[in-house]
Amino acid sequence: MNNFDFLDNEKLKKQLGFLVEIDKMKNVFRRTVITDCSRRENDAEHSWHFAMFALLLSEYSAEKVDVEKTVKIALVHDLVEVYAGDTFAYDEQGKKDKSQRELQAADRIFGMLPREQGKYLRSLWEEFEAKQTPEAKYANVCDRLQPLIHNYLTNGHTWKEGNVNSRQVLERMYIIKDTAPELWKAVTGMVDISIEQGILKP
Amino acid sequence: MNNFDFLDNEKLKKQLGFLVEIDKMKNVFRRTVITDCSRRENDAEHSWHFAMFALLLSEYSAEKVDVEKTVKIALVHDLVEVYAGDTFAYDEQGKKDKSQRELQAADRIFGMLPREQGKYLRSLWEEFEAKQTPEAKYANVCDRLQPLIHNYLTNGHTWKEGNVNSRQVLERMYIIKDTAPELWKAVTGMVDISIEQGILKP
Repeated sequence: MNNFDFLDNEKLKKQLGFLVEIDKMKNVFRRTVITDCSRRENDAEHSWHFAMFALLLSEYSAEKVDVEKTVKIALVHDLVEVYAGDTFAYDEQGKKDKSQRELQAADRIFGMLPREQGKYLRSLWEEFEAKQTPEAKYANVCDRLQPLIHNYLTNGHTWKEGNVNSRQVLERMYIIKDTAPELWKAVTGMVDISIEQGILKP
Repeated sequence: MNNFDFLDNEKLKKQLGFLVEIDKMKNVFRRTVITDCSRRENDAEHSWHFAMFALLLSEYSAEKVDVEKTVKIALVHDLVEVYAGDTFAYDEQGKKDKSQRELQAADRIFGMLPREQGKYLRSLWEEFEAKQTPEAKYANVCDRLQPLIHNYLTNGHTWKEGNVNSRQVLERMYIIKDTAPELWKAVTGMVDISIEQGILKP
């Protein structure tokens, strides 16, 4: 059952079915709030914002990166959350079964696409998760920097909710240190200011 | 005044300032609702969804397109709306001063970036607006197809609000006919079904 059953083209039917299904990303809410503090951010807008970070900050990657590939990683990196939901970065309990939940979700969401496209999108997601290639490392930098900036600008919203301290934040950001040293200066600067302002526990 | 005044790197300061400013896209609401009908869609999540359409449907473009470039066009095509707001596709009055408002907004938003990056992002936006290159035409196809599908799946929400008939919808979609003939079949199929179901005026 598909909203495009009137089409003869089976491939296009799958593609449009997938594009409708992923509209659910707009209802997967993260812990992070948008910078005016009015509401939580959803996965669709986070993915767009992350892609913009990837597009603009590649010069700071210590290794040369394929920007376009990183942008594509940004677009698809959270698709499994349509079924697996968002796991809070500092939720140690939730992280335990995260990979199992996400693997099942990946079979389901990428399986909706024509085989080659499903394989390709899944490979981008797997690359991101494995953090081995320059693009995957740089993508992880952007994916961490974006919510850090949101917390810095929203009075430490998520840090307070999660009762998080600066050591935990820096640990989570650590991939930035070697992958993008110039951005690491921004990270430590924001953390220092947040501690001074009392919005992040030392 | 910038939240990153603690940085010595003036270029990075501008880039991060811009990346914070465009968070406002998450509060620019379109007429279109998300597919569960719960609320209007914002520009950030629309841009992400459009980028996913661009990533997956390029085989239907009659002319060969650079997919990665089209994805980048998708990411930036609505940035001017941070200041110019969204103009409803069927608002003939609002369209009159749209380009003037958007030109001023473009100066402001792209002017926040380091010169070369600002010029580059602006050129992508201008290319999209001019609809001349294969990528710009294909991008416009995706930008029109996405809300059409939303209307088809949400009981004609925006069509009813705007008191729009099928002729107006098909006129708006017309670029799809020659740019992506296979997708045009999907368009006319959705329009026909919508008329049959009484959710779109003939």
